[in-house]
Amino acid sequence: MGKQFTEVFHIPYYDCDTTGSLKVPTLIKMMIKTSGEQSKELGVHNDFVSSFGLTWVITHHDMTIERLPKADEQITITTEAESYNKYFCYRRFTVRDSEGDTMITMDSTFALMDVEARKMGSVREEIIAPFESEKIKRIKRAEKIPPLAEPIRQKEIGIRYWDIDGNKHVNNAVYLEWMMDGLTFKELIERKPVRMLIKYNKEIRYGQSVIGVTSQSITNDHGTVHHILSNNEICAEGYIEWAEG
Amino acid sequence: MGKQFTEVFHIPYYDCDTTGSLKVPTLIKMMIKTSGEQSKELGVHNDFVSSFGLTWVITHHDMTIERLPKADEQITITTEAESYNKYFCYRRFTVRDSEGDTMITMDSTFALMDVEARKMGSVREEIIAPFESEKIKRIKRAEKIPPLAEPIRQKEIGIRYWDIDGNKHVNNAVYLEWMMDGLTFKELIERKPVRMLIKYNKEIRYGQSVIGVTSQSITNDHGTVHHILSNNEICAEGYIEWAEG
Repeated sequence: MGKQFTEVFHIPYYDCDTTGSLKVPTLIKMMIKTSGEQSKELGVHNDFVSSFGLTWVITHHDMTIERLPKADEQITITTEAESYNKYFCYRRFTVRDSEGDTMITMDSTFALMDVEARKMGSVREEIIAPFESEKIKRIKRAEKIPPLAEPIRQKEIGIRYWDIDGNKHVNNAVYLEWMMDGLTFKELIERKPVRMLIKYNKEIRYGQSVIGVTSQSITNDHGTVHHILSNNEICAEGYIEWAEG
Repeated sequence: MGKQFTEVFHIPYYDCDTTGSLKVPTLIKMMIKTSGEQSKELGVHNDFVSSFGLTWVITHHDMTIERLPKADEQITITTEAESYNKYFCYRRFTVRDSEGDTMITMDSTFALMDVEARKMGSVREEIIAPFESEKIKRIKRAEKIPPLAEPIRQKEIGIRYWDIDGNKHVNNAVYLEWMMDGLTFKELIERKPVRMLIKYNKEIRYGQSVIGVTSQSITNDHGTVHHILSNNEICAEGYIEWAEG
């Protein structure tokens, strides 16, 4: 429905894990870059959004992975701002291999945050119109993340300088890095993620103390549930479904 | 003296810090990728090196930074294996902007590690000959890293899954990430590194507990000294000289 935009990426091996598969958090960064490039092309780049005192933030990701890109592979990422309502914009990303076969899709929900107040603002027509998305009334319900069960792992997380992005808070992709890091090295080598849901509740800024908690999912034997906590609040929740690698 | 090889890089903003400057650890990864591409071109790629039971490791980096690349900038990295002796190979990297002006240089020392024994091996002619480097007798002395003074910061470091590379140990660029993370967010925003020395003494593998210690340098008011410790051993030492950003 909305305008489409495609960017080509060559996967450098240093963005891959020790088995040569692209780091999923970096894939998310590539996707978000693609939507940023579309915004630039349509004249509604970040500076324009900032002129309203606003910035894009992400509230949900829902990713389905058939196959992860490998080191040196060439992929395309296509993005499309499909629809929006008063508070949210719904965007789809499709990753294809060099044959044009779909490897990965991600549906993401974006919102606009007031930079000063650090609160959600409503979607402005000036910002969204160029994408030619469909205006809808309803709030789409994201697939529910299962509740956290008995923790199998709990980790203090040290926020690193580079975890912080231009919005002065922890970048959305970094939460997934923290969540996946709730598994052991052996588990991460032997499994591959096939589905991934993240819900962002509250931003985290540099200097906060952060804990990551991991449990098995009560809904699926091959799923794990992840909470990222700070100041006794659940800042982000995640669900990852795994297949043997 | 040796053959030169050049690769072009476009800097994605997600490899930059919150001020839009390229992450220095990622720059190192780009440099090492460039030397890897040269090895491939010359038919002495990693698989060939592995066939001798060996893998390349790095013992020293010495980087001088005039200006860091910015998000969306195009740069070239040129590398040249200048010389080698029985145990070490000396390689230079030069980063240039789109005008051809030099922004950064790095001199690095490589050695070959026996993968099974995790010990240094001697340089084999089959592996080094294609680079047409000069064979030298002497061991080059790297510039000395000043001793650690009174610690100003000490941090436990949690090794993340992606800190580990194909050699099953912490990637050389990650140490710099840990060292720079010994400064505060405010310091890292206000300063830029202009010189960087790292000496690698001992590899670190997943699951080890690691501590990073930072002090001012006794040799230079604008310098910091960094030790990365594990099992009471200094696994890496670093010196970073800073200028106001």
